[in-house]
Amino acid sequence: MRDYIKVFAPATVANVTCGFDIMGFAVDNPGDEVIMQLSNTPGIRITKITGDMGRLPLDPTKNTVGVSVYSFLKAINSNQGVEIILNKKMPLGSGLGSSAASAVAGVFAINQLLKTNVPPKELIAFAMEGERIACGAAHADNVAPALLGGFALIRGRDPLDVIKILTPSNLYCSIIHPDLEVSTKDARMILRPMVKLEDAVTQWGNVAGLIAGLMLSDYALISRSMHDVIIEPARSILIPGFTQVKQQALENGALGVGISGSGPSIFALSNGIDIAHKVAQAMQSSFDQLKIGHQIYISKINNTGVKIID
Amino acid sequence: MRDYIKVFAPATVANVTCGFDIMGFAVDNPGDEVIMQLSNTPGIRITKITGDMGRLPLDPTKNTVGVSVYSFLKAINSNQGVEIILNKKMPLGSGLGSSAASAVAGVFAINQLLKTNVPPKELIAFAMEGERIACGAAHADNVAPALLGGFALIRGRDPLDVIKILTPSNLYCSIIHPDLEVSTKDARMILRPMVKLEDAVTQWGNVAGLIAGLMLSDYALISRSMHDVIIEPARSILIPGFTQVKQQALENGALGVGISGSGPSIFALSNGIDIAHKVAQAMQSSFDQLKIGHQIYISKINNTGVKIID
Repeated sequence: MRDYIKVFAPATVANVTCGFDIMGFAVDNPGDEVIMQLSNTPGIRITKITGDMGRLPLDPTKNTVGVSVYSFLKAINSNQGVEIILNKKMPLGSGLGSSAASAVAGVFAINQLLKTNVPPKELIAFAMEGERIACGAAHADNVAPALLGGFALIRGRDPLDVIKILTPSNLYCSIIHPDLEVSTKDARMILRPMVKLEDAVTQWGNVAGLIAGLMLSDYALISRSMHDVIIEPARSILIPGFTQVKQQALENGALGVGISGSGPSIFALSNGIDIAHKVAQAMQSSFDQLKIGHQIYISKINNTGVKIID
Repeated sequence: MRDYIKVFAPATVANVTCGFDIMGFAVDNPGDEVIMQLSNTPGIRITKITGDMGRLPLDPTKNTVGVSVYSFLKAINSNQGVEIILNKKMPLGSGLGSSAASAVAGVFAINQLLKTNVPPKELIAFAMEGERIACGAAHADNVAPALLGGFALIRGRDPLDVIKILTPSNLYCSIIHPDLEVSTKDARMILRPMVKLEDAVTQWGNVAGLIAGLMLSDYALISRSMHDVIIEPARSILIPGFTQVKQQALENGALGVGISGSGPSIFALSNGIDIAHKVAQAMQSSFDQLKIGHQIYISKINNTGVKIID
């Protein structure tokens, strides 16, 4: 029996313009790695974390990987001993589903090692427990696409209803992560609890159009639908340069541009890798002009989700 | 050259639970008939209207058919003479797109007779002018499905963006029209201008789920998505018996139930004609118990839209 595994879980873009709290998709990079080793000594031990600049707790009851693995083991009544190394390969607090990636890597790894064969959709709930520790709330819009790959629709939360939406084969994503801090709490606080019915109708027209556009591989419809009249006007205030970056990306051919999760990362979807590169360059020069440091990632939509790499 | 035509335009169900102002679909029955005859005397004359109990104006500048045909002729700079007979074969003010059906029949008929070959999607704008005269506002959520058939998504209104969504082959609709009056104006007035963000998110999750369910022919997903937490709670107050009728329909196997347009008609979607009949019976006995008269219609989703019948 295998007692060691190394897995990769991808970064994810949640919200996807109009789809606040109900949509997310996975990318090929960045992503997190988890190395897990079964042990004869009961308990979960996080032996090492790299790439986090010392910001993440090794205490498994406070760490997103530890908590999600624990919730899995508890559900199957196991006191299996586990040693975990977490290699953070993406920025923390970036709006790229960093905690979701770690949580997903953890539950996927333990499910593989113990050969428990829990179906991927049922792993979502355990990974969401890890999210809860990191973000204070359990959302599935990063966890679900990190697990399943592709584009996930979270139709409802109680009970959880996740639908995988197929995406056009030539859809690429450019992500820029500026060196800015946006707390998830601030990003929630800035939203008004009431919205105009008129705006809500505009938004759900776009949501419907985006789903139809993805399923029909209709790039023009995807582009016409990628507008957020409710969340982005509020949250973009927290990201200096957002308007210029967005405009530059659109002028260089992006189908649509939005805030990734609650920011500060900004993503753009494009038809084809060449446009995705051009869009990435345009976004970079916008932040360069503002003298804001950044990392850039270009990737196809990741249709696989979390996977074994060793 | 043909100088006479008889066309049928179908009734339509707009809103479709969660899709307020952005969705509608056509049914096989009921529907309106328009008989149109070209004439050498310029001007539009409505020579006869049947089935309206004398409620509709013969004056073409005040009648939805007259106005839509006029807007078409004006756009092509024609002063063609036209004589129109309108056979109303559905109840007025029923929430079944009665005025849209007449308007669509008119513009379709004139486009056929003059061999102007304006594509169906471009006819929408002319039919909407007829809607404006009847309802005070130009909406496409009845006009578009009456013209195109099937399930229409109105992603946006300015500019108009209509997408035809394919529906599962076994999807049937049961409609009950109770003998009640609900003015479109009251139905608009009862809606609050502001909604909770939380409810809007629930709604657009369902909108996305409904579109995905229709496109995937996933009846269970269609059923899980057919919930309206914003409009129905307000408008159902205007329809005595709504709650009982809905409950009875669901208990008898309907996938989902909602108000058709702004009411008072209530529609249910079902997987298969047998269930559609059972659901119809259940809705009828609910209104029977309340001693409210009604008409019932059972039909497949109409994928053709307006058509020539003679």
